[in-house]
Amino acid sequence: MADLAIDDFYAVIPAGGIGSRLWPLSRADAPKFLHDLTGSGQTLLRDTWDRLSPLSGEGRIAVVTGRAHRAAVERELPGVPDHNVFLESEPRDSSAAIGLAAAILVRREPDVIIGSFAADHVIRQTRQFEFAVRQAVAVAREGYICTIGIQPAEASVGFGYIKKADELIVDGAPEAYTVERFVEKPDLETAKQYFADRDYLWNAGMFITRADVLLAELAVNEPELHAGLLELAEAWDDRDRRGPAVDRIWPGLKKIAIDYSVAEPAAEKGRLAVIPGHFDWDDVGDFASLSKLNSGGGRNELAILGEDARVLSDASSGIVVSQTKRVISLIGVRDIVVVDTPDALLVTTTENAQRVKGVVDALKLTGRGDVL
Amino acid sequence: MADLAIDDFYAVIPAGGIGSRLWPLSRADAPKFLHDLTGSGQTLLRDTWDRLSPLSGEGRIAVVTGRAHRAAVERELPGVPDHNVFLESEPRDSSAAIGLAAAILVRREPDVIIGSFAADHVIRQTRQFEFAVRQAVAVAREGYICTIGIQPAEASVGFGYIKKADELIVDGAPEAYTVERFVEKPDLETAKQYFADRDYLWNAGMFITRADVLLAELAVNEPELHAGLLELAEAWDDRDRRGPAVDRIWPGLKKIAIDYSVAEPAAEKGRLAVIPGHFDWDDVGDFASLSKLNSGGGRNELAILGEDARVLSDASSGIVVSQTKRVISLIGVRDIVVVDTPDALLVTTTENAQRVKGVVDALKLTGRGDVL
Repeated sequence: MADLAIDDFYAVIPAGGIGSRLWPLSRADAPKFLHDLTGSGQTLLRDTWDRLSPLSGEGRIAVVTGRAHRAAVERELPGVPDHNVFLESEPRDSSAAIGLAAAILVRREPDVIIGSFAADHVIRQTRQFEFAVRQAVAVAREGYICTIGIQPAEASVGFGYIKKADELIVDGAPEAYTVERFVEKPDLETAKQYFADRDYLWNAGMFITRADVLLAELAVNEPELHAGLLELAEAWDDRDRRGPAVDRIWPGLKKIAIDYSVAEPAAEKGRLAVIPGHFDWDDVGDFASLSKLNSGGGRNELAILGEDARVLSDASSGIVVSQTKRVISLIGVRDIVVVDTPDALLVTTTENAQRVKGVVDALKLTGRGDVL
Repeated sequence: MADLAIDDFYAVIPAGGIGSRLWPLSRADAPKFLHDLTGSGQTLLRDTWDRLSPLSGEGRIAVVTGRAHRAAVERELPGVPDHNVFLESEPRDSSAAIGLAAAILVRREPDVIIGSFAADHVIRQTRQFEFAVRQAVAVAREGYICTIGIQPAEASVGFGYIKKADELIVDGAPEAYTVERFVEKPDLETAKQYFADRDYLWNAGMFITRADVLLAELAVNEPELHAGLLELAEAWDDRDRRGPAVDRIWPGLKKIAIDYSVAEPAAEKGRLAVIPGHFDWDDVGDFASLSKLNSGGGRNELAILGEDARVLSDASSGIVVSQTKRVISLIGVRDIVVVDTPDALLVTTTENAQRVKGVVDALKLTGRGDVL
C-alpha cells in the first residue's frame, strides 16, 4: 500500500440529500452534509474531503451539488477547483449525479477510475478506509464495478445489505469478492441471520469503477438517461453552453438510484465486486444514530450537540441538539430526542427517530414549509 | 342566599408566590397569577377578582403583592382602588401578608370580616363557591375562624387535608363543622383512606374570619409578628410614613404560613370551622395538574396552551405550553411536558412534574438565574 495519491483515480462526492430524518437540524438550506454531527469541529462534507484527498489528491475531487449549495460548498472546500464543482439545477437522484461526473471526467481522461462517496456519512479508522479504497481501485482497473461493503457491527435493520459470493483474484486486492446480490433493508429476524452469516455486508453506497464501464452499464440499462448525460458532458466545458444545457436536459433525467441502474444489473452479470470494509461507518440516518454516535456508546448517556448548548439534565438520556442559546432543562426523560432551533422544536424518542420524515411531509402538506 | 355583596366583608388576595413548579412559564417577573392557565382569556388573578367581586363589591377587594408586581396588578385589575393595593418589599409568607391586610382593614372597620383567597387557584362552579363563602362569613360573624375545605375529587397526594369534626349550628351556614385537625400531604395509601372517609377535605388555603379575631390569634401565637404588623398598619394610611415603615419593619417579620400561626392553634381550641366546598378547585401546582386541567380529562390527549402555538403532534399526549412562534413537533411522546419560552425550554413528563422545582434550585446554584 503506497501512501501516495492514486494516479488514475478521481473522487466524486454527490452532495445532494437534505437528510429529512434529521429535521429540524437538516433543512433545505442547511442539509446534513453542511453540519458538524460528530463534534469534529468541521462539516461532514469537509470530513469527507479530508478522507478522500490523500487517495485522489485535492485537485482530483469532484463535488456534485445543487446550485443553491454552491457558495457553502466552496466555503467548506477552498481547495476545490471551479471546474470540479458540478451543479445540478434540482435533485435527480444518484444515477444522474454520479453519471454526470463519469461523463464529464471520461472526456478529460478516458481511462479514469472514479470513486463515489456520500458527502454525509461518518467513517472512523481512516487507514482501514484507505486500504479498502485502494483495493477497490485495483479491482476497478480490471473492469469490475466495485463497491465497499461494511462488515456489520450489529444486526441493523436500517441499512441495505450486499451478499458477497466468490473470491476474486486481483493483484493489490487481497479481500476482493464478487457480489451475489443486493438486499433491501431487512426485518429484525432477517438482520440477525445476516449478522450471524459473515457473507452479508452493509451497503454504504460506495462505488469505484472505470468511468467508461459505469457509462456502458448505464447505456444498456437506462439509455435515455445515458444519452442525456453524454449531451450534458459534451457541453460542460464550454461555460456559455453549460448552464443552458443543464436547464434544458437535467430536469428531464430519470430519477433512479445507482443501485438499480448500475450495481444490481452488474451483479447479475457477475461484474460487481465488493471489498469488505473493516472500519466504523454510519450514514447518520436519524437521531437515534446521531445519539449513538455522540454518546460514546453508553445507553444511559445524554449526547449534547451544539457549541452554545446550555443543558441541565436530571435523570435523562438520549440526545439534545441545541442551535439556540436557550437553557434546556430535561427531567426524567429517557431516550429522548430534543432538537432546538430558532424556528422549530422537535421532541421525540430514539425509538421514533425514523418517523421524523413523516413530520417533514406533514409540514409540507399543511403549508408550513417555512421551517423546512 | 342573597345575590348582593356582603356588607361587612372584605376580600383579600395575597398575590405573592412565583409558582416554581411551573418554571419556565412562571418566573420572578411573570408569576403564576399573571398567566392565563385555563384558556379563559384572562389571568388567574383576574379570574380571582371576578369570582370575589360579587361577594365583596369591587371597592372592597385588597391585593397584597410585591412592589415589582404593582404595575401588572393594576393593569389586570383596573377596578382596584389605590388604597387597597398593599405592597410588600419582599415575600414574607402568608401570615405577614394576610396579617397586614387584617391590621390595615380593622383600623378602617373594626368589625370587618376578611376572606383570604389565593390569586392563582382555579375554581369552577362559581355559584357553589359563592354559597360556601357566604356560609363561611356567617360562621366568622360568630367569632370563628372559618376555612373552606374542598370535597376531594380523587385520592390526591398533592394537597394537605382538613379533618372535620362536629356540626356547628350557625344561621345561614347549613354545612358548618368544627375542624378536628390539619394533615400534611399524605402518601398514596393514606390519601386513599382519606378519600374513602368523607370527613377529610382538601386544604385550599381559604380563610374567612373577623380581622380582629385573626389578629388576636396572631397576638397569642406570634406576638413579635403581630406587633410589627400593628406598627405597619398604624403608619399605613400616611403616604409619607408608609414606604419607610415597610422598609424598616417588613424584612424582619417572621416567615410563617398562616396555617401554623393561626389556623392550627385555633383548631386546637375548637375555634376553627370549615365549610365543605362542592366545587372543582385546583391550585395548579405543577404541569401534571395544568395538563389535566386543560385536556378535558382525556388521558391520551395533548393539551396545548399558547395563543400562537404551532404544534404538530403525532401519537403524543401531555401538555405543550408555547410562548414562542416556533413550530413544535412531537412524535410518539406520552405524558410529555414541553414548555417553550424565548429563553428557556423544559422537557419532562407529567410523572416528573413535581421535580421542576429542583431545576429552579439548580439554576440558582449554577449561576443561571437569568432565566428564573
